[in-house]
Amino acid sequence: MKRIFLDHNSTTPIHPEVVEAMLPYFSDKYGNPSSVHSFGQEAKVALEEAREKVAKFLNASPSEIYFTSCGSESDNLAIKGIIWANQEKGKHIVTSKIEHPAVLESCQWLEKHGFEVTYLGVDQYGLVDIDDLKKALRKDTILVSIMQANNEIGTVEPIAKLCRIAQEQGVYFHTDAVQSAGKLFLDVKELGVDLLSLSGHKLYAPKGVGMLYIKQGTKLETWLQGGSQERGRRSGTENIPYIVGFAKACELAMQDLNSLREKLLNLSLAFLERIRSAIPDVRLNGHPTGRIPNTLNLSFAGCEAQSIIMALDLKGVAVASGAACHSGAVNPSSVLKALGVSDERALSAVRFSFGRQNSMEEVEYVCGILPGIVERMRKSQSTISRP
Amino acid sequence: MKRIFLDHNSTTPIHPEVVEAMLPYFSDKYGNPSSVHSFGQEAKVALEEAREKVAKFLNASPSEIYFTSCGSESDNLAIKGIIWANQEKGKHIVTSKIEHPAVLESCQWLEKHGFEVTYLGVDQYGLVDIDDLKKALRKDTILVSIMQANNEIGTVEPIAKLCRIAQEQGVYFHTDAVQSAGKLFLDVKELGVDLLSLSGHKLYAPKGVGMLYIKQGTKLETWLQGGSQERGRRSGTENIPYIVGFAKACELAMQDLNSLREKLLNLSLAFLERIRSAIPDVRLNGHPTGRIPNTLNLSFAGCEAQSIIMALDLKGVAVASGAACHSGAVNPSSVLKALGVSDERALSAVRFSFGRQNSMEEVEYVCGILPGIVERMRKSQSTISRP
Repeated sequence: MKRIFLDHNSTTPIHPEVVEAMLPYFSDKYGNPSSVHSFGQEAKVALEEAREKVAKFLNASPSEIYFTSCGSESDNLAIKGIIWANQEKGKHIVTSKIEHPAVLESCQWLEKHGFEVTYLGVDQYGLVDIDDLKKALRKDTILVSIMQANNEIGTVEPIAKLCRIAQEQGVYFHTDAVQSAGKLFLDVKELGVDLLSLSGHKLYAPKGVGMLYIKQGTKLETWLQGGSQERGRRSGTENIPYIVGFAKACELAMQDLNSLREKLLNLSLAFLERIRSAIPDVRLNGHPTGRIPNTLNLSFAGCEAQSIIMALDLKGVAVASGAACHSGAVNPSSVLKALGVSDERALSAVRFSFGRQNSMEEVEYVCGILPGIVERMRKSQSTISRP
Repeated sequence: MKRIFLDHNSTTPIHPEVVEAMLPYFSDKYGNPSSVHSFGQEAKVALEEAREKVAKFLNASPSEIYFTSCGSESDNLAIKGIIWANQEKGKHIVTSKIEHPAVLESCQWLEKHGFEVTYLGVDQYGLVDIDDLKKALRKDTILVSIMQANNEIGTVEPIAKLCRIAQEQGVYFHTDAVQSAGKLFLDVKELGVDLLSLSGHKLYAPKGVGMLYIKQGTKLETWLQGGSQERGRRSGTENIPYIVGFAKACELAMQDLNSLREKLLNLSLAFLERIRSAIPDVRLNGHPTGRIPNTLNLSFAGCEAQSIIMALDLKGVAVASGAACHSGAVNPSSVLKALGVSDERALSAVRFSFGRQNSMEEVEYVCGILPGIVERMRKSQSTISRP
């Protein structure tokens, strides 16, 4: 059976060149970079070369790159690390209602531990309003955390502008760039952010490696104690194979950025056009144009998203509803709710997220089978709802 | 040049069968286990099969196995997770002076955040005294954390007995078993512990995966928030390849335990005998018999450990002083200091830690070159110290 993966916002297959780059570090160059002998130093060299590559990808300095075990850890480290280190300034955080759970739940946990959080709303497209941020900032605000691109709808936030507002008030700014990396041009100097999270497995590197950019001079307290790896900010023996793979993925993302963006945009727009012309009552959730190029969140009126996902899965096509991280639950997506979307529309929303290895033939195939699936569902729904 | 790795307590090469087990999960079975489609479910099945294997290795239930990114993270999660979840009981922790930095530094961090810690001393062999633990326990003690085997000297603590003392007072017991796994028979029911940490890369699996055993019914608060993976106790997309590899390593460790223990013991005892007969003034640090079978910590009177390590490295032989995690510093090992060893003896201590792929020929080779190295060093030392 054909297998078509249109769920690249949940994870990506590892690029063959990334696998190749990692392999020597499993059984051959297996030293611990903290060791002083040659096995250790060989690993240390690989670690620092990887750090340089990732720094180049972000236009940062290598000393500002901290490897972690995943994007969620990066978000946790950024938020708790800043809060704990800057308590003399206050206890207030500002974030948005559509952040990734790693940010939202970290904030909620801090609320339980005596801190205060303002959750900014978004407009119908998922955009945070700059004036809302201005109003939310307080004398005791320590940190603002707003994602660069939303995982469910793809909306891109005006990070550079939001960041400037925060920093004018002496407030640190963190952005989760997990979904934008490799899809948008990333430059920490242009964005101006103090902290930026990345995840390997959304970038054709493995699950189990992430990165936190921490601008020089940022006051951050480590939250994972131990052997003081990563200049004391993230303990635990470094995962050299994955770090090497992650750096390779950043290198590839930089090389291919323009062509990949164009490809993803072509695929997603072709998909949207075909679906709209073949299926009535389809609505795009999120920003009509200000989106990362690979993401389409579409509501199919009168259908349940879960049923569409199952039906497509039976045909070998993988898509998602809501974020993979918290699917299983059948509540309407809190991201879509924050956009003011009705429960019914939210529960009919399917996310198609394209990736590097998708082809126009795959788009044609899915656009060929989806109309029939939706039509059957709508018919059976209307049959069921008849008395 | 010959390359001989005698530093298996710092890290291990990945077993070829472990690499083989991981490979399909990089580019082929790459789904996110939180996804409902078949790519996701394929990953989910691999995850749960791995959990069963690790549970079997520890004689635990699969629902008691929580995957993390490393042993250090497991220690942090155990200690902070228990402390935060049980604050109504008190704010006191008991640990020992010779724990891994992941435990010690977590405790020190908690002290900064309002908790109290008792650091138990050890005897000349590195053993924690049962009566000392009895005396240290207070009404407000929440947790005792004592390692099963020390990374620097290999001394094995009487965990089952220590654990019983703590639990009789209603106190949770955590053990870091990172260095004992694969070298001692491990059974959480026999030990009786509430929490137990493992690390992949000390067990011929990769760096970047660990595990925390949490006994059913244990009250623990997660400290890494996000998508609620690992039943809400460790967020972050699961590192399926490494988790599969880790489970394979546990399976291999279980299969080979007796033969590997015997092999490691033969190698280390042969090494000790040859070195003692060829080099005068060599002293074993740690317990003379109650050690994990692969570890020898030897002091070479009149020599600097760092110089021995460098000289052996030039001959392709990798050994360590202190723990790899905090080498680079030339302070005497705090573990050896806790044993009452003099600074001079501590600074002359070299750790030889044998592994699965070492051979008697390698032992012979190192025992052939080490006496000359030590002799030259002692001569030059005595020359330098003459007026």
